[in-house]
Amino acid sequence: MRIGVLTAGGDCPGLNAVIRSVVHRAVVDRHDEVIGFEDGFKGLLDGRYRELDIDSVSGILARGGTILGSARLERDRLREACQNSEELLERLGLDALIPIGGEGTLTAARMLADAGLPVVGVPKTIDNDISATDRTFGFDTAVTVATEAIDRLKTTAESHQRVMVVEVMGRHAGWIALEAGMAGGAHGICVPERPFQVDDLCKMIEERFARGKKFAVVCVAEGARPAEGSMPYEKGQIDQYGHERFTGIGNRLAIELEHRLGKEARPVILGHVQRGGTPTAYDRVLATRFGWHAVEAAHRGDFGMMTALRGTEIVMAPLADAVTELKTVPQDRMDETEAVF
Amino acid sequence: MRIGVLTAGGDCPGLNAVIRSVVHRAVVDRHDEVIGFEDGFKGLLDGRYRELDIDSVSGILARGGTILGSARLERDRLREACQNSEELLERLGLDALIPIGGEGTLTAARMLADAGLPVVGVPKTIDNDISATDRTFGFDTAVTVATEAIDRLKTTAESHQRVMVVEVMGRHAGWIALEAGMAGGAHGICVPERPFQVDDLCKMIEERFARGKKFAVVCVAEGARPAEGSMPYEKGQIDQYGHERFTGIGNRLAIELEHRLGKEARPVILGHVQRGGTPTAYDRVLATRFGWHAVEAAHRGDFGMMTALRGTEIVMAPLADAVTELKTVPQDRMDETEAVF
Amino acid sequence: MRIGVLTAGGDCPGLNAVIRSVVHRAVVDRHDEVIGFEDGFKGLLDGRYRELDIDSVSGILARGGTILGSARLERDRLREACQNSEELLERLGLDALIPIGGEGTLTAARMLADAGLPVVGVPKTIDNDISATDRTFGFDTAVTVATEAIDRLKTTAESHQRVMVVEVMGRHAGWIALEAGMAGGAHGICVPERPFQVDDLCKMIEERFARGKKFAVVCVAEGARPAEGSMPYEKGQIDQYGHERFTGIGNRLAIELEHRLGKEARPVILGHVQRGGTPTAYDRVLATRFGWHAVEAAHRGDFGMMTALRGTEIVMAPLADAVTELKTVPQDRMDETEAVF
Amino acid sequence: MRIGVLTAGGDCPGLNAVIRSVVHRAVVDRHDEVIGFEDGFKGLLDGRYRELDIDSVSGILARGGTILGSARLERDRLREACQNSEELLERLGLDALIPIGGEGTLTAARMLADAGLPVVGVPKTIDNDISATDRTFGFDTAVTVATEAIDRLKTTAESHQRVMVVEVMGRHAGWIALEAGMAGGAHGICVPERPFQVDDLCKMIEERFARGKKFAVVCVAEGARPAEGSMPYEKGQIDQYGHERFTGIGNRLAIELEHRLGKEARPVILGHVQRGGTPTAYDRVLATRFGWHAVEAAHRGDFGMMTALRGTEIVMAPLADAVTELKTVPQDRMDETEAVF
Repeated sequence: MRIGVLTAGGDCPGLNAVIRSVVHRAVVDRHDEVIGFEDGFKGLLDGRYRELDIDSVSGILARGGTILGSARLERDRLREACQNSEELLERLGLDALIPIGGEGTLTAARMLADAGLPVVGVPKTIDNDISATDRTFGFDTAVTVATEAIDRLKTTAESHQRVMVVEVMGRHAGWIALEAGMAGGAHGICVPERPFQVDDLCKMIEERFARGKKFAVVCVAEGARPAEGSMPYEKGQIDQYGHERFTGIGNRLAIELEHRLGKEARPVILGHVQRGGTPTAYDRVLATRFGWHAVEAAHRGDFGMMTALRGTEIVMAPLADAVTELKTVPQDRMDETEAVF
Repeated sequence: MRIGVLTAGGDCPGLNAVIRSVVHRAVVDRHDEVIGFEDGFKGLLDGRYRELDIDSVSGILARGGTILGSARLERDRLREACQNSEELLERLGLDALIPIGGEGTLTAARMLADAGLPVVGVPKTIDNDISATDRTFGFDTAVTVATEAIDRLKTTAESHQRVMVVEVMGRHAGWIALEAGMAGGAHGICVPERPFQVDDLCKMIEERFARGKKFAVVCVAEGARPAEGSMPYEKGQIDQYGHERFTGIGNRLAIELEHRLGKEARPVILGHVQRGGTPTAYDRVLATRFGWHAVEAAHRGDFGMMTALRGTEIVMAPLADAVTELKTVPQDRMDETEAVF
Repeated sequence: MRIGVLTAGGDCPGLNAVIRSVVHRAVVDRHDEVIGFEDGFKGLLDGRYRELDIDSVSGILARGGTILGSARLERDRLREACQNSEELLERLGLDALIPIGGEGTLTAARMLADAGLPVVGVPKTIDNDISATDRTFGFDTAVTVATEAIDRLKTTAESHQRVMVVEVMGRHAGWIALEAGMAGGAHGICVPERPFQVDDLCKMIEERFARGKKFAVVCVAEGARPAEGSMPYEKGQIDQYGHERFTGIGNRLAIELEHRLGKEARPVILGHVQRGGTPTAYDRVLATRFGWHAVEAAHRGDFGMMTALRGTEIVMAPLADAVTELKTVPQDRMDETEAVF
Repeated sequence: MRIGVLTAGGDCPGLNAVIRSVVHRAVVDRHDEVIGFEDGFKGLLDGRYRELDIDSVSGILARGGTILGSARLERDRLREACQNSEELLERLGLDALIPIGGEGTLTAARMLADAGLPVVGVPKTIDNDISATDRTFGFDTAVTVATEAIDRLKTTAESHQRVMVVEVMGRHAGWIALEAGMAGGAHGICVPERPFQVDDLCKMIEERFARGKKFAVVCVAEGARPAEGSMPYEKGQIDQYGHERFTGIGNRLAIELEHRLGKEARPVILGHVQRGGTPTAYDRVLATRFGWHAVEAAHRGDFGMMTALRGTEIVMAPLADAVTELKTVPQDRMDETEAVF
């Protein structure tokens, strides 16, 4: 077989592990040919790719980022290409295409599959918000980085009687905030799925201090929002070039808590450190298994599907299932901790 | 309710997280009373325990070990106590008992449950070999520690053209070797489930060197064994006091590979670093959820059961299911990597 | 002897290691009595302290923060107390006082010493800006945390062709930026000691991209400032309560680079994670040695001095030397890397 | 200038950082030509080298090992080459040679310098035992790895009432044992510089247990030896091929302590994980500075010298000084902790 692989969308620890695994399984075990498109679908449309042999994936398992690069999806160009899918397929000369990416990428993958291309998707997102799979690789790394930050912040908060507000990634789903908050023992967790009451947060913190505890840590997803009327909230401030900028919920909430509680509150915005660097062992294993199973699916002709974790097994799920609905934090997961506000 | 908790068996990162979670859920949310028995079942039988309130579990989430201590099971004493279970129950004055432990502990837990005690078990083992749950806490930490070691060994092996043999835990099940081997990109993985052919290992290493690769890493579970006749294998050497000692498969295999390949081979025996220290974020979350659900199960009267992970959910599984069979690495997991020998 | 110990000023990994070391040396080896004042000089003035025996420092070596707490210095109250130093000394009943802290604390320590109190100072600052000692504990930890962040950011920057601006601590001295920038391989480093030309930064980045490198990382100290006229620079923006807020150089510079280069630039503000959490091995050793030598100095009657690292030795330096001048990054250290702008 | 660089001797985190720094300073700043010899002096003698430009050192700063490889010194061949040094120099066409290595390498470097070659040495050893420099890179990484292991072992030792014996590197000098022991809070430290009394170790451990402490950690350098008559000590055991093997002091001491104390004692032999993997920030900075200063020394014609850390400065020290005497742990460093036996 001649198999194409590409990575698209935001960075995610484990991308290289998938690429390596695809090459190991396909080239070494099954004597396939593997080509890697550069900069996501852009490379696919432009015909920019390189042959991937075992040496080209040597040493990348533990490396963050993607050796193939990534770029923003040009949806219109892709749609156009799909309308002439036979030409595209012929030009590429592919027996299978393995796009690795998040919701946008998988939607594009589905478009290609519907147009008749032999597509096997591999889901990735640090946000863990893709339906049809129990977990995605990258998520564990993001949670680990955020948890280590909370661990560090706790001792400094305690010594100085402060409130720390840690903003983690998660625009639409609060998985990172929930799990890093639980793992780090945050006293408050705010997720996009549930608008939070600042009053309740303040009350909890005041009770802590009243009990003799001298600090509090709040872990807030970047997409979390205060309940209507709960705190003054405007989206932005104006930067030196007249643009609205940098007024994430972390900063706002720290100001609000300091104002209301009369205690020092400090925001920490973790940002892109959550999506870079070496993947955790968990993510490397999951990514490696996804890559292996994607090749097997290609050989079985299991197209229009993507790899998915179900319990301890890797199964194939229809691409359609992956992209219809965002997997958000359900009520019963929030109930498992008293910290979600 | 009055709930007793104890930790038994070998050390496992996440034990403290379970204890803390039990206290948080029971004492804070449900206004229960929680007592912690010291040194496992020993404390239960001797009546040595202390009250656990929220302050006594402050700051332990991220700490390895167990604040309650652990000790070897005295099975006979326990059996005896079970024969007079009403007396025991009355003496303890418990509405629920939450023993946290591995196979031995859960077997004891089942014995107590069969004798009529209100038991809710929580499984723990770094070996991940308990049936009825997808994963156990502690395992991810062990895999992480082993993977970090392999990461470090690879660069030094490469610079010096060496074969490194990393022995990891896993007497009866090869989960740690499999996942750390995959995550670290070990070229050979040996598990107890499949006797390995030293010839095949040697051949793989020689082919690597022939391809210009200047090193190899083999990850071997302590319980892995060479196939019959595959290499000279005696269990022990004699120490200065006449006892058989310290002749694990890691050491043996390194000697064997050096002898056969004529290349330097070095063993690294990770040992107890795999079971100590701060749990990973993954293990903290799983342990915390287990603790929460154990309390809920107690309140529902769900006795004779243990907490278990199934996919993304925590469910209750009969203690009987947990201990009948060891969960070993199945064939299809070994097939997912060419590295298992 | 009866020795008092206190921690004052901002948090710094290694404070607990000093406290532990003082207690080990004084109580165990020399049969002294050690008391710890709570919340810095506040506890000293209020007479709030507790006896510190070997059990009270058990397990704190690796813990961030300070078990004694810290608080802002009330300089006036302290000065007042100094004017009646005999009364103070009598009230405290101390043979020696070991204050652990940064510039402010050591200045206060000197005031106390000048007033006749038997003071032995121990310097601490993550900023490494105290003269008279080669290094301070806490600095290595801060550099390590910042370096790990840069490591992570590099892979994500590379995959997405971005410019990353990492803001690290250092209001008046650029040590953290310099060393984390060197250790992380940042392409630009901006320190308070040298106003930077944004033009030069832009030129370097453009040349990198022209050479085919697809990303750049700039490490900027919070106290770094653009050269006059180099970029529009106002100190603040207005928050929801009318206060100037959150407009650090990191955010500003990222906006500026994005504006000028036409490439995505992202700020990461590491903040308090740099001063919390477990100290590195280096900092633990240095802190432990400082504590040991402080006790020895007290026994020798070496007052008005502080512990200092000179080469590989711990020596005693006059408190006066420590606080007259800030130790900033000298020209020849900047010359050692082409990255400082 | 045309500058040659090579790495020789055992692996050491930071080698790549030196190579990168040499190339950055020489090629980018000074427009020199840099060639890298493969496999140490072997490549020098065989004329195996490659041009090193800025791209060839991209991304190696944080990587363990050495991109140039290393090999054992063939002293005779080197000596022979020295006898015809003019021919060698002409053949190599070098204006400067920068060998990076430990004692053996620096001795060879001195031989080459004495024969008239323009040599600037860079010292490396994880053991920190080279005179004439305050510290060597690699040492901090080794100490960090060993400290993290002790951190992990402590919790597991405590939970199970065990004695842990951690064997770290250091055949002739006890620096790693001393500093990792101090940083990890080991209760006993054994170094090659002082034969230890097992009786004293046992007494200390028994007193700990008597005080209610339920565990002890002993950190022992591989080169540490019991005092004459202190414990039965033979060097080796016989492996399956009749060779003496694997009977390090760690294993022996654990057996001895278990035998005498009647408590479980477990050895952990850290081995090669101490010399592999990513260097700490400290080591990366030191290695980078060494590389920069080596190039500067070459340009100044400062031959027969090596880079050295003195306090905070990098100075040049005669190669002769580096290799005359091993830098062992002095008495006053042992006195700084009660833990050295």
